[in-house]
Amino acid sequence: MPQNLQQHLPHHDGSPLHVSNPYPQLGETVRARLRVPHAFGAVKAVYTRSNPDQEPRFLAAELVHTADGWDWWEAPVDVENPVTHYRWLVVRADERTFWVNATGVHDIETRDNEDFRLTAFPEPPHWLREGVLYQIFPDRFARSDAAASRPAPEWAIAAAWGDPVDLLPPGRSHQFYGGDLDGVIEHLDHLQSLGVSIVYLTPMFAGRSNHRYDASDFNAVDPLLGGDDALIRLVEAVHARGMKIIGDLTTNHCGDGHEWFQAALGRPEAPESEFFYWLNDEHTDYVGWLGVPSLPKFNWASAELRRRFIEGADSVVGRWLRHPFDLDGWRIDVANMTGRYGKDDFNAEVRQTVRRTMDEVNPDTILLGESTNDGSADFQGDGWQGAMTYANFTRPLWGWLSEPGARSPYFGQPVGVIPTYSGAQFLEAHRQFGAGFPWRSRLGNMNALDTHDIGRFATNARAGAVPVALGMSATFVGMPVIWAGDEFGLTGVDGEASRTPMPWGATDAATESVLWTYRAIMPHRGEHPALTDGGMRWLRADDDVLVYVREHASEAVLCVAARAGFRVRLATDAVLGASSATRLFGPAELRVQEPVDEDEGFVELAADGISFTMWELPGVGSPDF
Amino acid sequence: MPQNLQQHLPHHDGSPLHVSNPYPQLGETVRARLRVPHAFGAVKAVYTRSNPDQEPRFLAAELVHTADGWDWWEAPVDVENPVTHYRWLVVRADERTFWVNATGVHDIETRDNEDFRLTAFPEPPHWLREGVLYQIFPDRFARSDAAASRPAPEWAIAAAWGDPVDLLPPGRSHQFYGGDLDGVIEHLDHLQSLGVSIVYLTPMFAGRSNHRYDASDFNAVDPLLGGDDALIRLVEAVHARGMKIIGDLTTNHCGDGHEWFQAALGRPEAPESEFFYWLNDEHTDYVGWLGVPSLPKFNWASAELRRRFIEGADSVVGRWLRHPFDLDGWRIDVANMTGRYGKDDFNAEVRQTVRRTMDEVNPDTILLGESTNDGSADFQGDGWQGAMTYANFTRPLWGWLSEPGARSPYFGQPVGVIPTYSGAQFLEAHRQFGAGFPWRSRLGNMNALDTHDIGRFATNARAGAVPVALGMSATFVGMPVIWAGDEFGLTGVDGEASRTPMPWGATDAATESVLWTYRAIMPHRGEHPALTDGGMRWLRADDDVLVYVREHASEAVLCVAARAGFRVRLATDAVLGASSATRLFGPAELRVQEPVDEDEGFVELAADGISFTMWELPGVGSPDF
Repeated sequence: MPQNLQQHLPHHDGSPLHVSNPYPQLGETVRARLRVPHAFGAVKAVYTRSNPDQEPRFLAAELVHTADGWDWWEAPVDVENPVTHYRWLVVRADERTFWVNATGVHDIETRDNEDFRLTAFPEPPHWLREGVLYQIFPDRFARSDAAASRPAPEWAIAAAWGDPVDLLPPGRSHQFYGGDLDGVIEHLDHLQSLGVSIVYLTPMFAGRSNHRYDASDFNAVDPLLGGDDALIRLVEAVHARGMKIIGDLTTNHCGDGHEWFQAALGRPEAPESEFFYWLNDEHTDYVGWLGVPSLPKFNWASAELRRRFIEGADSVVGRWLRHPFDLDGWRIDVANMTGRYGKDDFNAEVRQTVRRTMDEVNPDTILLGESTNDGSADFQGDGWQGAMTYANFTRPLWGWLSEPGARSPYFGQPVGVIPTYSGAQFLEAHRQFGAGFPWRSRLGNMNALDTHDIGRFATNARAGAVPVALGMSATFVGMPVIWAGDEFGLTGVDGEASRTPMPWGATDAATESVLWTYRAIMPHRGEHPALTDGGMRWLRADDDVLVYVREHASEAVLCVAARAGFRVRLATDAVLGASSATRLFGPAELRVQEPVDEDEGFVELAADGISFTMWELPGVGSPDF
Repeated sequence: MPQNLQQHLPHHDGSPLHVSNPYPQLGETVRARLRVPHAFGAVKAVYTRSNPDQEPRFLAAELVHTADGWDWWEAPVDVENPVTHYRWLVVRADERTFWVNATGVHDIETRDNEDFRLTAFPEPPHWLREGVLYQIFPDRFARSDAAASRPAPEWAIAAAWGDPVDLLPPGRSHQFYGGDLDGVIEHLDHLQSLGVSIVYLTPMFAGRSNHRYDASDFNAVDPLLGGDDALIRLVEAVHARGMKIIGDLTTNHCGDGHEWFQAALGRPEAPESEFFYWLNDEHTDYVGWLGVPSLPKFNWASAELRRRFIEGADSVVGRWLRHPFDLDGWRIDVANMTGRYGKDDFNAEVRQTVRRTMDEVNPDTILLGESTNDGSADFQGDGWQGAMTYANFTRPLWGWLSEPGARSPYFGQPVGVIPTYSGAQFLEAHRQFGAGFPWRSRLGNMNALDTHDIGRFATNARAGAVPVALGMSATFVGMPVIWAGDEFGLTGVDGEASRTPMPWGATDAATESVLWTYRAIMPHRGEHPALTDGGMRWLRADDDVLVYVREHASEAVLCVAARAGFRVRLATDAVLGASSATRLFGPAELRVQEPVDEDEGFVELAADGISFTMWELPGVGSPDF
């Protein structure tokens, strides 16, 4: 279906407007609703098509509500399997058939992996879908007075706070700025001013690098960060402000300095020997993550490794969630490769066990998994509750909003140039890569402009694009993410250069302007149920303009993202309540032309240049389920 | 990418022209080749993008060959996992990037489930990919003299051979024509005249129905069919003619008359109790397939069920493949639902165990699984070697070649009308639903016009469409299928009506014409390596015309399927060797205009009406791997 006809297409998504219970039990029957605009043409029949035990089942929908140019059809979906697929079949009066799935409306049959999904796993904490996440790389965030007095470790190359980041080995991993956890405590006001509700700390365990993804010990906070006591202080301070805080765990590998690995290296008889993959009988040669010797890869066939690391309250996974540490969850590093090697695939067992341990210790915790490409099959709800992924948001965003032809290492793809996407391509990529996730997992996906692993978005952004990208991050389905430093306009061409020390006290007018934008946009996230619990319906995807609306029973938020000046007209039925729109942010004009006699009305949106604008609209009325 | 530009796009598929070893071992590095026509534009770099352990790996390709307007790029793919995904990244000189995967060429990133795949499982017998399959429903095929003397069983409603098929219960399942296996033996000449190489018998075990999908016993051929001795005679006769023969097994359920079920019904303490799903403590209420009480569903958690049914040489799966029965394989009924129920999913274990047993008993056997929709995830090569599926061939074919608006139960979709597909929609659906299968599994997929479970294609076909559909079945990737009776032009609106007794000796001129078409088209399948081992490259997909070429080192076969008169021009580079084309079948004209001075040459194909035409062309030259 042409992308610019979005406004006239049937709509369904996994939000409470359209699904009677997004968190059903196995065996429950959920009521699902499809909205069909009259502009789509007269409809004869509508069905849900689910796939219990992999066999199609069609159930007829009833027309339950008609208002404002829309018909609401409702049909049951039986949640017979832990992951229940469904799509819609719409039969128009002209007997043409259409399928509606998570990528949109189609005039040919569609594949299972684009189906809508209901999954019968425990509901993630509500604060995950309501969250704004702030990512902190401890060595580069802030240095407390105490940090200054700590001696640098022998592997470190000490740097002054204002030194440039060293991109080449050995500085790349060993350049040491000495940020610590008490430094984070000192800046919690700043986080709150940005609307942040969840703090995400990259690893806090001691390693032999500035990034600490090479843990030497999972049972103690690095003394260079202030040790366990500093973590306790930080968690208490974060909680005192009503925020949450999660840690970062490497289930794929540890550091070669880890005691488990040191006990096993060259000692085939050691109990820890089975924790790793060995390449020779002497156990002196081993498998490292992507061949890196400092990062020996875990072999999750080992029951003892599971016991120590992920299983039960006393495991690594469990103990940091308990008092006195009280972390609120984990982000799992390299979740995509965890447990996978050659013919082995223990990924499902590991993610399910991690989550089971978390549910035992404290169900009010969240579990995010790194999976930067099409990892959706791992995110059906049985373990990871949201993805640190780039395929459905970050990369399409870069494609649409970067300077055309900008040179960049671009997520490790060997092209050297950021591809240039039209608005239609953005939407197609966004939908394709989002479709594999159940709605509940999409709500937990990290919608980042960038992270510590990639260049900063601002580096190659079109002039004026940062507010647009930020507005999209704040209003899309998924969790907005601020990678510390973005709010000061920092740049960095790749994942090393982006690990810049924070420019505390060194801001200028340009920096203040970026900061103002963050403070003006991001706090809306926590204030609008439409943005956290609402559906998302697309109205337009032109080359330079994207128009969509987040819809909730109590309110809606209309958004227009543009990379150039624009003037678009939408049908009045497509944007209900536009005449009572209240501007929340941005410069675009909204004008409603009511229908007069023969002339259809319209809603016109226009702005002179690159911009992001959002308005609050009335809620979407429909009968209770 | 617009479908009508196919001829100018890069091409890769899983055939030996493009992959150094389609059947690699785990750990092997395969060389893969991408062909890029110069008309696509200058190319700067090409990469394979595989996904070992779910992490992208890009490997650069080298330009290894240039000829006839095409560049051949070659790159390694490491087969590190049992199922190894890969796609191509093409960087043009203008720095635009394109992805090439199993659905074609894309200008945005693509999802994993459309990747090309190499899988490290044992190679299926070559005669699977070389086969033409003929499907026989024993009760309706032919009645030997001996059959006439057998009394009908008590459940049966005896019918004379010329009686119409009774579509309503109880006749629907109980109307009994009395065909038998000796009747099949009497018509093997007929099968050979059609180019058939594999006979597929629907169930031969006694049940309490004419279809026998409700087996009462898996260990004896139904005496009504002639018993075990008749099967031995049939297999010997088939083998004597150099053909193969496979049976049909219900791993999802048995009949309620089966001794296992009877032993368990109402007896919770019986060893067979664990073979089924019970709905009450007394074990008098149970789960039937789709709720049908006569078909109790198996619970594959049971080790004893596995032992008796699928595990080892003495199991049901094993014993019929051994002497004196010597069946050449199985088609598995309801393979998609097998082992799946509620939270249970034993499907992978069952299909892997079935195949392991077959490999132990006789590796030169084939295993097909019924999975009529998007079942590709079950067909990665670890068990089922090909699918009885309708989504990638049969349904799109009906959509393209049926009378517009024809009323039909259409595969159980509740619309009542066959959707009308354009050529572009046909190609998109064909590719979408084919893409999930590794090439090796696609080679084993059944490309049926219809089967005993659906209406016959001819029922609603456009005038003249049968030869077109048959030609496509004979020349597509996958196994051509003749459902007994199609070759006599039989019709039937649904899967009951299509179970017509064969019209032996009652043919007329119209029937003879259909039969002539079958005999003129189908034997080509076995005579052309391009059709069994060749690649498949698309040249055009217009509304009414599809043009594609099957390519092999030794020859190629150019095909044009049209549902109306047409005249199309192709670039000479797109159809190499067209000037030495040899007509194999069909009426279309092929004219080559060589380039003259400034004027580019072309290949023109034209015919006046609905038609299928194929030509033999020279093989595709490329250096050895």
